[in-house]
Parts: sequence; structure tokens; C-alpha cells
Amino acid sequence: MTDHRIALIPGDGIGVEVLPPATAVLDRVGARHGLTFTYDEFDWSCERYLNEGAMMPDDGLDRIRHHDAILLGAVGWPGVPDHISLWGLLIPIRRQFDQYVNLRPIKVMPGVPSPLRAAVPGLEFVVVRENVEGEYSEVGGRFRRGFPDEMAVQESVFTRPGVNRILDYAFELATTRRGVLTSATKSNGIVHTMPFWDELVAEAGERHPSVSWHQEHIDALVAKIVLDPARYDVIVGSNLFGDILSDLAAAVAGSIGIAPAGNLNPERTYPSMFEPVHGSAPDIAGRGVANPLGAIWSAAMMLDHLGHPEAAAEVVAAMADVLGNTPVRTADLGGTADTAT
Amino acid sequence: MTDHRIALIPGDGIGVEVLPPATAVLDRVGARHGLTFTYDEFDWSCERYLNEGAMMPDDGLDRIRHHDAILLGAVGWPGVPDHISLWGLLIPIRRQFDQYVNLRPIKVMPGVPSPLRAAVPGLEFVVVRENVEGEYSEVGGRFRRGFPDEMAVQESVFTRPGVNRILDYAFELATTRRGVLTSATKSNGIVHTMPFWDELVAEAGERHPSVSWHQEHIDALVAKIVLDPARYDVIVGSNLFGDILSDLAAAVAGSIGIAPAGNLNPERTYPSMFEPVHGSAPDIAGRGVANPLGAIWSAAMMLDHLGHPEAAAEVVAAMADVLGNTPVRTADLGGTADTAT
Ligand SMILES: CC(C)[C@H](C(=O)O)[C@@H](O)C(=O)O
Ligand SMILES: CC(C)[C@H](C(=O)O)[C@@H](O)C(=O)O
Repeated sequence: MTDHRIALIPGDGIGVEVLPPATAVLDRVGARHGLTFTYDEFDWSCERYLNEGAMMPDDGLDRIRHHDAILLGAVGWPGVPDHISLWGLLIPIRRQFDQYVNLRPIKVMPGVPSPLRAAVPGLEFVVVRENVEGEYSEVGGRFRRGFPDEMAVQESVFTRPGVNRILDYAFELATTRRGVLTSATKSNGIVHTMPFWDELVAEAGERHPSVSWHQEHIDALVAKIVLDPARYDVIVGSNLFGDILSDLAAAVAGSIGIAPAGNLNPERTYPSMFEPVHGSAPDIAGRGVANPLGAIWSAAMMLDHLGHPEAAAEVVAAMADVLGNTPVRTADLGGTADTAT
Repeated sequence: MTDHRIALIPGDGIGVEVLPPATAVLDRVGARHGLTFTYDEFDWSCERYLNEGAMMPDDGLDRIRHHDAILLGAVGWPGVPDHISLWGLLIPIRRQFDQYVNLRPIKVMPGVPSPLRAAVPGLEFVVVRENVEGEYSEVGGRFRRGFPDEMAVQESVFTRPGVNRILDYAFELATTRRGVLTSATKSNGIVHTMPFWDELVAEAGERHPSVSWHQEHIDALVAKIVLDPARYDVIVGSNLFGDILSDLAAAVAGSIGIAPAGNLNPERTYPSMFEPVHGSAPDIAGRGVANPLGAIWSAAMMLDHLGHPEAAAEVVAAMADVLGNTPVRTADLGGTADTAT
């Protein structure tokens, strides 16, 4: 028996509702593969912020540093500004645990309608997003606050090591798939950082000669993803472009409500974090109607990361089975998926 | 008779092919509305750069400063880096002539298939993009070039006057339409400039109380445009977000090949510039097969800007008629549209 110690951070809103079905699936599939899971739950959330003045305790990161992985529900609640909830919990975890890969598998699931005429079941690709530098930067600020000539400046910071490692991850992933890669750029408009990105992509291409790569400007790329999604396999982008592309791609696949994300530290120096892409959904929270498939799919990604690809594949197959072969579409889906697994 | 003096910049590739049909349409519709056009053509292009070392002459901007409007074909050619072709021609015109509004009308045209199941003829909205500041900035650079610790930094600069004027333009446009406006933001990730943008949007909302507005993060917004495009009417965004949204929206409407753009200086201190959204299309250039509808639609926007909305509407109606009621779909479409007009 292998035991994994998992930090659970349900967070806010439906985050609290979707983690129990996910851990139930983990326990069930674990039993078939000789795996057990020990869960430590942390109440870090907007509620905690409102009661205690901080999203997590000062030593929060130390408390989860030695877990094998982190499973997160959702973060954010009306009344708590995003810069507090996100920059007080989600983003510090990503950054301090050097989770520099944000991995978003996109799949058209059977039975889940895509808004695109062209998207067919089986359509599948993956967005690899840089997750700790780039456009999401605390460098910058305001100048002449409140005056008519006020301005805000925001620095994007791209480093050679930071870009190289995400590119190497993406190119290596491409070698295990169809051997093709698309880089998102905007070097015709963003004059300093994006040409640098392009240069490093070309160098990475030389390091991975078996991968056939090309680049597209982000404006053209979002258009082509809508017009012809099947042409893509691995798409790599900066923090901001990867964020935009992964949500767009999930929408194109009809799966925005069930899509998973992995925040990976590939070197395993720190724990990686897995989270459904959906938010805390204040409008439906507390009513038990949230779809747990995003959390379950995220748990499957976690299994894969922990070295159990067969168990992970079983969970995804069970999800596809439930979606394709049963009419179940709401909260009770959690129970059904359990059984199917 | 009113005469308008128009600067024509065919530019590169199919840009050279699509302007003649557009001027033919202008002359034809002008004859019915008491308008004449005097055209001055400028050979500013990548070809000029390769022959003479610059996209345009040193006094280029002075030569077109007093024209009533500029009609541009396309800029860019393989072998000439974008930062030369675009930052040597297109972007200086936008910036030096303070064309701070980039206006992109999106329309599902009859007979033009949309990739979305949900997009129906008549679906229509407009993207208002800030066009002279923001993420497209020359501030920034490289540090430790070529070394392992090299980095590139890029400053985004948002000013209160710059943001206010694009917001006022967008809110005023909304009052002439459905009275609803969506602001694209990313204040949960971009911590300095985007919260500033949000504050100014809230202030603009108070200045225009008849407009009902809301804001969405760019990642959620691109997803929703694919899932439910009909909910939008006026979308306003920064330079980068507006660029991404307008291409996405055109793709969703099935009209990426025929979409127009206006680069407006609303105060008319400087000439405004109109251009099809498509590029120079090196793959089909010189074969006479380019679709001139993007240029023709741009010419219609120009008519509107010059104070001739009926003539503009006639051109757009003729385009819709040709697309909806004839099977013509290629270069000869130019001739047909002429006749229809
Ligand atoms: C060519 C490029 C610099 C330009 C832009 O991003 O502004 C284009 O995409 C556009 O939208 O007009
Ligand atoms: C909530 C927000 C800061 C976050 C991001 O942009 O990184 C989210 O959109 C995501 O993609 O995980």
C-alpha cells in the first residue's frame, strides 16, 4: 500500500461542495490500485479572511509544504476583493511552491455539447501556461493618485530561465503526443517581452528537433481556435495568454464547468496543486447542485502527477462513461461517478 | 458636391488588390449622394523598406496630415520583421494622429457561415479598443542580453485621460445602441493597471447613468463570447484585450476575412484611418483572388466617419445583399458589389 498525504483547501462557495465527491472517487479508485490517501483539511477562505483578517495563517505555506499534493476547491467571494482572496491564497501557493507549469487538458467529452459546429467528441488538446512570472507581476504602481494626470504602470517580467523551463516542459510534452506545438505570441505589438519569448521558442525548437512548432499571434490564435480547433495539440503561452487560451479552449470544448487545472512543480521540490477551473459560484453555492466533475477530473490529474497514470485514466474513463451513457447531469453525478469508478 | 481627399496606402500583398474595388465602390455610391473623392496614393510598404530602407519617408506623416481620411490595405511581408513593418508605418499613424479609438463592428452576415451553432444572422456587436497606450508600449527593454540570467521587461502604461476618453467614447456609443456595455478586465491577475481601469470604468458609469454596464475578466469573457455571443452589444477593452476580443468576435461571426476596422481620432484634429482586419496574405497575394469585402466595409466606415451615414449604410446593405442573395464569393465579388451599390 502506498499512502499519499493530501492537503485539502475547499476554499469558498461550491469549492466546499465539490471536494468530498473528489476524495470519495480518490478513495474508491485508490482501493483498486493499492493506494490510500490521508487528507488534512485547511479552512483557508474568504470566510476566514472576514473573521480573522487573513486568507491563511502566516505559516500557512509551511503547513502544507510537505504534503504530496494540494487539492483546492475554489477561491473568491463577493465582498472580498480579488487582490485579497487570490493574492492572499491561490497566487502565493503557485509562486512560493514554484508551480511554474499550469496544465490545462481540454477534451470534448461524449454527451457534453460544444458550442462549435466543428468540435467533435475526441477533440483534445492541452494548454501549457507559464504560471509564476510574466504579465502577473507585483512590479509597478500608481503615479499622481487621484489627479487628472494620474497613471498606472505595470511591468511584465520575462526571464530566460523562467521561459526556458516552461518551453522545455511543453516541447517534451509534445514529444509524448503528436509532436506538434504552437507558441502564442504578440511580438508584433508587445515590443520587448514577446520578441524575447519568440527567440527562446526558436532555441527550444532546436533543443527538441523532433517537434514541429510554429507560432501565432494571440489575436489570430483565438480566432483559429474557434475556426479550426482540431489543428492544435500542445499550445504554450505566457501567464496571461495561457490564462486566456485555456478558458477559451475549455469553452470551445463545451467543458468550462468541468475542466481541471494542474499547477505543477515538475521537479517535485514542492507540492503541486490541482483545482477545477470553475470558480466559487456564489449564485448556486450552498444548494448542493454544483457539478463535481471539475474537482474529480482535477483529482485524476493529481493521481497522474503522483505516479499513478492507470488510476488517473480510469477516473477520466469513468467520467466519460457517465457523461456519454447516462443522463445524469447535476450534483448527484458525484454519487454516480463514484459507483462507476 | 462635397469632395473628400483620401490618402490611399495599399501597403503589401493583397492590400494592393483590395483597395481598387473599395475606391470603385466609393465613387459609385458617392455619385448617388453628391460626393466625390480625390485619391492620393502612397507606396509605403515592405517593398519600399527593402528598396529604400524605410517603410515611409521621414516626412510621411506630414504628407497625409491634411487628408480627410486614410484608407489602408495591409502591412507586413515575410522577411521584414513585424517590429519594422508595423512600428514603421501602421503604429506611428495610429499614435501620431491620436487615433485612440479602434472600432470593430462585428456582424453575422447573411450567407456567411459562423462556426458557432448559436450565431445567427443579425447577431451584431461592436468592440471598442483603446488604440494608443496600454500594453503596446515602447517602454521597457532587455537586461543582460545573451546571458543565462537575461530578462526582458515590458511596461504597460495606462493614463487617466487616455482611459477616460476611450471609456467615454464607448459609453456614448452604448447610449445610441442598446444601452449596455461590457468592460474587459483582468484585475484579479494584473494588479496595478487593471484595478485602475476598473475604477475609471465605475466613474464613467456614473457619468453615463443611462448605460447599464458590467465587467468581466478577459478569460471568462472570451469563453462567454463563444458560449453566448448574443448577450453583448458594446465591449470596451484595453489595447491588448481589445485586439484579442475583436479578432475572436470576428471569428465567432464568421467574418474574419471581411471584417473592417476604424482607427478614429474622434476630435478630427487628425485624419482617421480605415483598414480591413485581414493581413497581407502572402500565400494568395498577386493572384487576384483576395476578397475585397473587408476593404469595402472599411470604406463604408470611412463614409460614416466623414458624415455620410446613409451612403455608408447603403454599402453595407449592398454587401449583405451580395452575400445573402448571390453565390459570388471571390475576387469578382468586387465588381458585383459595385453594381449592387
Ligand atoms: C498588426 C498588429 C500590430 C495589429 C495590432 O495588434 O494592433 C493588428 O493585430 C490589429 O489588430 O490591427
Ligand atoms: C483567479 C485568477 C487570478 C486565475 C488566473 O488568472 O490565474 C484564474 O483565472 C485561473 O486561471 O486560475
